[in-house]
Amino acid sequence: MSITKNNIREKLDQFTSHWTPHIIAELNGQAVKIAKIKGDFIWHKHDEEDEMFWVIKGCMKMELRDQTLILHEGDFTVIPKGIEHKPSAENETQILMFEPKETLNTGDGQSPLTVKNPQKI
Amino acid sequence: MSITKNNIREKLDQFTSHWTPHIIAELNGQAVKIAKIKGDFIWHKHDEEDEMFWVIKGCMKMELRDQTLILHEGDFTVIPKGIEHKPSAENETQILMFEPKETLNTGDGQSPLTVKNPQKI
Repeated sequence: MSITKNNIREKLDQFTSHWTPHIIAELNGQAVKIAKIKGDFIWHKHDEEDEMFWVIKGCMKMELRDQTLILHEGDFTVIPKGIEHKPSAENETQILMFEPKETLNTGDGQSPLTVKNPQKI
Repeated sequence: MSITKNNIREKLDQFTSHWTPHIIAELNGQAVKIAKIKGDFIWHKHDEEDEMFWVIKGCMKMELRDQTLILHEGDFTVIPKGIEHKPSAENETQILMFEPKETLNTGDGQSPLTVKNPQKI
């Protein structure tokens, strides 16, 4: 297996679509995913998986049922399994997610935004 | 459980020591750790754990037995389990690691640099 280095900015430059997670690394059954987001996502939860969100650039809103977090560049949060959440961003925002490899972006939600097999880049 | 947001820069400002990983998030049995590094670490490997390194600020050298990677800001790499590696940094460098919660910083190596219970910040 070849061990290489990669760069987050170069990876982000490889796609322009919104709400399409791309896998940039896999380890220990987990995946590191990046996405560009703009507008509203759907309310959903992941029954078995915690999910970390990290804002690389821009500003993201994370609505929970009892509070709303505003995440700016360098801010991160962990949404524990079972907790309903709804990400959104007024302007295009670049985010990174740490989560199990099999985590579905829309969790238990039904939506055309579901990406069943995120692309590895 | 209260869900909060945190900031990577604020977390990095909370300590000055070198080669002392600090846990900033835990999820799915994994930990997100940050460290400030300067000088040489030891050769070691983790028999059961893959380890992701990401340079937040500065420049890190990652020696492997058959190659050397130079990681600048925004660069990342995954060192698969079982692979010997030796991190170092000429000048102080800030890094993030994503790995199983129980991963010992010095792996199978014997060193006074071992941190058995990384502080959560």
